Amino acid sequence: MSNYLFGVDLGGTTVKMGLFDIKGEVIEKWEIPTRKEEAGSKILPDIADAINIKIAERGIEKSDVKGIGIGLPGPIEKESIVHKAVNLGWTEDVYVKKIMEELTGIPTKAENDANVAALGEMWKGGGQGFDSIVMVTLGTGVGGGIIIDGKVLSGSTGAGGEIGHIHMKDDEEVACGCGNYGCFEQYASATGLVRTAKKILSENTDATILDAQTVSAKDVFDAVKTGDKVAIKIAEQYGKDLGKGMAVIGSILNPQAYVLGGGVSKAGDILLTFVKDAYLKDVFHGSRDAKILLATLGNDAGIYGAAKLVL
Amino acid sequence: MSNYLFGVDLGGTTVKMGLFDIKGEVIEKWEIPTRKEEAGSKILPDIADAINIKIAERGIEKSDVKGIGIGLPGPIEKESIVHKAVNLGWTEDVYVKKIMEELTGIPTKAENDANVAALGEMWKGGGQGFDSIVMVTLGTGVGGGIIIDGKVLSGSTGAGGEIGHIHMKDDEEVACGCGNYGCFEQYASATGLVRTAKKILSENTDATILDAQTVSAKDVFDAVKTGDKVAIKIAEQYGKDLGKGMAVIGSILNPQAYVLGGGVSKAGDILLTFVKDAYLKDVFHGSRDAKILLATLGNDAGIYGAAKLVL
Repeated sequence: MSNYLFGVDLGGTTVKMGLFDIKGEVIEKWEIPTRKEEAGSKILPDIADAINIKIAERGIEKSDVKGIGIGLPGPIEKESIVHKAVNLGWTEDVYVKKIMEELTGIPTKAENDANVAALGEMWKGGGQGFDSIVMVTLGTGVGGGIIIDGKVLSGSTGAGGEIGHIHMKDDEEVACGCGNYGCFEQYASATGLVRTAKKILSENTDATILDAQTVSAKDVFDAVKTGDKVAIKIAEQYGKDLGKGMAVIGSILNPQAYVLGGGVSKAGDILLTFVKDAYLKDVFHGSRDAKILLATLGNDAGIYGAAKLVL
Repeated sequence: MSNYLFGVDLGGTTVKMGLFDIKGEVIEKWEIPTRKEEAGSKILPDIADAINIKIAERGIEKSDVKGIGIGLPGPIEKESIVHKAVNLGWTEDVYVKKIMEELTGIPTKAENDANVAALGEMWKGGGQGFDSIVMVTLGTGVGGGIIIDGKVLSGSTGAGGEIGHIHMKDDEEVACGCGNYGCFEQYASATGLVRTAKKILSENTDATILDAQTVSAKDVFDAVKTGDKVAIKIAEQYGKDLGKGMAVIGSILNPQAYVLGGGVSKAGDILLTFVKDAYLKDVFHGSRDAKILLATLGNDAGIYGAAKLVL
């Protein structure tokens, strides 16, 4: 019987690491820097060292560790192979599983970080009690993680759950970071919210505490909470765009719940009020009962989900 | 070792039945009528009788039958429970698995018919060689079946793969059959193609062999094949609408392939030429390499897929 799990959230700047017991309680968490030099070749050895040292420190037997789960920013194919992860300096195929197992002797599994965060929220966060959820991370872009019957939907080439790039608008004139026009994240990300705010503020003549030059996602919802009518108009437009995209996802996947995370979700429950009506308006009736929830694990979703990967 | 499978495609008028060997070769196929009277209570006993008789006729041992798979028109929850299937006269919960197992003594599994058709096409039809496909059935409406890693995506309440009701257009003034406005099937179904044709023909002043009063989906593609410029314009618009919806699906699911079936797909390869560019324009780059294929099993997709359900 194994008693321990390692959950690793490998980001472009920092590697977050967690040692968990088999029930998913955190025993310890810590961070190490992500050393991207030399095409990122030091990253996995650094992680392996950290784990080997931690095991020695605590006097844990290797046979008592069930596995190492790793979430990282890149598309991942079967057998945990990463073809390219620019944020880590990886420009060639990296056999994460193979390398980590050689360096630690512990079974390893890797997944895309957005998918891993979804798994974490389902296991120990906002999506607890469900096994089919869609996590929608509203940050600089829109990240997605899809879990069906408890399993990550990785996609056939590791691009499953790239919901930020659902085509939403035909007449968009600004290109998305991906090169297409009219992607979901151009409207539903924190960046998209600011863009919507600036557009509405530039045409606005009513009184508002918002400033078109400096407005942030947080400013909008803070102003909504004070009853600012222009801010409410912005939040309504944003809620429509977000809810419409979620309705598209719902008609295809019929999940039990959506879990909203990322910067914009810090607005709290008030965000949900703006999303729900738009969702219900456009989704297929069979998917109307899905719950719309807030993420609760914040930056720890990655280590939890990574640990769950190997459970 | 079991050597036989039954695949049952339960429709509103006819029940198509197939006896297969374990490799998926059809041994015999036949049909019985769907008796919908008395709230459809005779349907499952009729199917059970047909199977019991077939087994006796051929001298097959029950222990030599691996299972009975059934595809039917309704949402199906876990354990093969159907809450409602109006096309079968079923207005209350029907425990398909339980009833059939009691009547035949053979393990039974039921799934939504669109999902089952997708499974059939993947196993023995246009999607052979793949294990993650999306079937898009272009008929009176647009049906969808999603297979991920060889498994049907049923959805949490049996509404998975209802791709016909993806919200596509905000300014639609005509309601879809589901009650929403701007659903994918309003443009991508055979009905949608006719509607697009009528619209373009009503504004058209160029020479064409198409007649706005009587135009059908088949007429459009027949005319395209003769080089009719107006028909080509209609097919282009239709291809854009279809490809755009498939791109939305692709950005979420990242399948290996799409299999197009239903009436419109009888147009053949020429249909694909109108779809591909629109798909590539809008899909996330990670899903650009997916194949777009034609279904090959026609009306037999259901019995094949149903048999595969229990394999």
